[in-house]
Amino acid sequence: MAKIPAYAAQSAKSPLMAWTIDRRDPGPNDVVLDILYCGVCHSDIHQVRDEWGGAMFPMVPGHEIVGRVSHVGKSVTQFAPGALGAVGCFVDSCMECEQCKVHHENFCEKGVAYTYTSTEMDRKTPTFGGYSKQIVVKEHFVLKVPANLEISSAAPLLCAGITTYSPLRQWNVKKGDKVAVVGLGGLGHMGVKLAASMGADVTVLSTSRAKEADARKFGAKGFEVTKDPAVFQKLRGRYSFILDTVSAPHDYNAYLELLKPYGTMVIVGAPPEASSVEAFALIGANRQLAGSNIGGIKETQEVLDYCAAHKIAPEVEIIPIQKINEAYERMIRNDVRYRFVIDMASLS
Amino acid sequence: MAKIPAYAAQSAKSPLMAWTIDRRDPGPNDVVLDILYCGVCHSDIHQVRDEWGGAMFPMVPGHEIVGRVSHVGKSVTQFAPGALGAVGCFVDSCMECEQCKVHHENFCEKGVAYTYTSTEMDRKTPTFGGYSKQIVVKEHFVLKVPANLEISSAAPLLCAGITTYSPLRQWNVKKGDKVAVVGLGGLGHMGVKLAASMGADVTVLSTSRAKEADARKFGAKGFEVTKDPAVFQKLRGRYSFILDTVSAPHDYNAYLELLKPYGTMVIVGAPPEASSVEAFALIGANRQLAGSNIGGIKETQEVLDYCAAHKIAPEVEIIPIQKINEAYERMIRNDVRYRFVIDMASLS
Repeated sequence: MAKIPAYAAQSAKSPLMAWTIDRRDPGPNDVVLDILYCGVCHSDIHQVRDEWGGAMFPMVPGHEIVGRVSHVGKSVTQFAPGALGAVGCFVDSCMECEQCKVHHENFCEKGVAYTYTSTEMDRKTPTFGGYSKQIVVKEHFVLKVPANLEISSAAPLLCAGITTYSPLRQWNVKKGDKVAVVGLGGLGHMGVKLAASMGADVTVLSTSRAKEADARKFGAKGFEVTKDPAVFQKLRGRYSFILDTVSAPHDYNAYLELLKPYGTMVIVGAPPEASSVEAFALIGANRQLAGSNIGGIKETQEVLDYCAAHKIAPEVEIIPIQKINEAYERMIRNDVRYRFVIDMASLS
Repeated sequence: MAKIPAYAAQSAKSPLMAWTIDRRDPGPNDVVLDILYCGVCHSDIHQVRDEWGGAMFPMVPGHEIVGRVSHVGKSVTQFAPGALGAVGCFVDSCMECEQCKVHHENFCEKGVAYTYTSTEMDRKTPTFGGYSKQIVVKEHFVLKVPANLEISSAAPLLCAGITTYSPLRQWNVKKGDKVAVVGLGGLGHMGVKLAASMGADVTVLSTSRAKEADARKFGAKGFEVTKDPAVFQKLRGRYSFILDTVSAPHDYNAYLELLKPYGTMVIVGAPPEASSVEAFALIGANRQLAGSNIGGIKETQEVLDYCAAHKIAPEVEIIPIQKINEAYERMIRNDVRYRFVIDMASLS
């Protein structure tokens, strides 16, 4: 066992503070990553505060991890010491079920081992995330970082990137499609960049004009302020696809009405309370309301490679780990453009 | 103008009673049908009682119409006097918009002319449905009735048939798929017959055991009673597709959890109140909640031809028009197996 510096919450009421975790000695299939950067996802806040239930403490959050390989087990073939590697939202799965076999390890029928506030597949050993100096992960669950990705800004691709890329691919968003992205935060800004890179005609639906210039810089052709109810009349039936990244409560029906017949709205943000859905908002025009949850390892590698090929990078603000509690407060105030990334060199 | 016997409601509080309507003199593109049979759809009750709002009175309901052609306009090419013809939920559309051009006249961007409680495309002339002796409809909106369909039981294909066939096709239900049909009524029983004919492994989810023998006769391999909460645990993650035909309020989240990852639940029944949908019920496994609304003329013809080829017919109870108010009461009590069809010879 190695003793590894980390930042942890000891309970749902505690701030994150320096702590030390045990990381297992690497087995033959394991890769040891010295963590360079870790993105800060809004779900880190939900989990640390146990807002979704079932949180496990002490908790070391972080599932947008980029690091450098410092050691590999003897059966590892795809990584060598000195290479870059990345880890996303999960670190193991059964590898045998119907879902694992079709590269959807995230939906493993036995239950995936999440990167933190979870356990290894033994259902006993707690997992600890990327707010730490090192992580030990089975090779299959380590992603390759393409050479031309900027290391410091790549980390958010492991959650914000795959979470927005996967539904755009599942619904085959393509050149000329009229797409709306609801909310321009950590997820939304990646949704705009990715959809625009696929040739879609992207409009951002936001509660204020504050981010319009940014939205257009990221590739949006349209920007509409949803505080004005008349906007919903104006945009009625306009989009074939809506990517809804907002986790604050909002009226799904109003947004569903913006879809053309056979259009789909995908939610990737999870409001804390159930939302009210009118049958006619769906039936009226064969519309679909869908959810999308990250992606499997194969597709996560695909988004890293895609972003390298298309020169797409998340917009980040680099912080030292000592600023993490303040960063959470700023995220809650929507005061980040567009993702915090922790420089793990700040932790010793 | 021809004076045509019909049954109409004079207001949302009135029973249906004998009345006389005007039908237009047929134009060059019109087909005149002497109505033989008209199915009784649950939406007839909602509309007659103005439960969905916007009802137009006097109202002659009925959109599951089978008749015999008595006259055709001089430009009509597909029908001749003496042939059978059928009319479904709409009788005209703009024929020029993006939706009409792709055979989705039901989603006409200018607004379709429904068969009743609606107007012709002039937005003035009221339309009257199939609870009448005759109807005059533009040729494009008249369906052909295949020779080997039993005329008296074919009428419900025009709504119950297309409403269940269309989503099964849109989601490509096929051999071996695990499909659940929620509710075994007018729509549900057609959903079971159609899905089974496509090779799906169909389970009926019902509130009681009463219809189990029928469900199995229609092709269901499974039958589960949803009054028992343990059933939802047992069936969790089992189905790739759920056809939900129930218009009484029920918990969508419980049913969504029965879907495998990437599964779809399609609602074709419209509960009167909005339903509560948990984000995690969708996001947790990339599930979709979709609505489906009848189908275009091309697909409606397809379901008639499909049912003729596969020897599928709705289960009907033939009634005289004089029993229509009683039939409504029986439908509300769920006392019909499985669709009333009015024998229009009873009206003179």
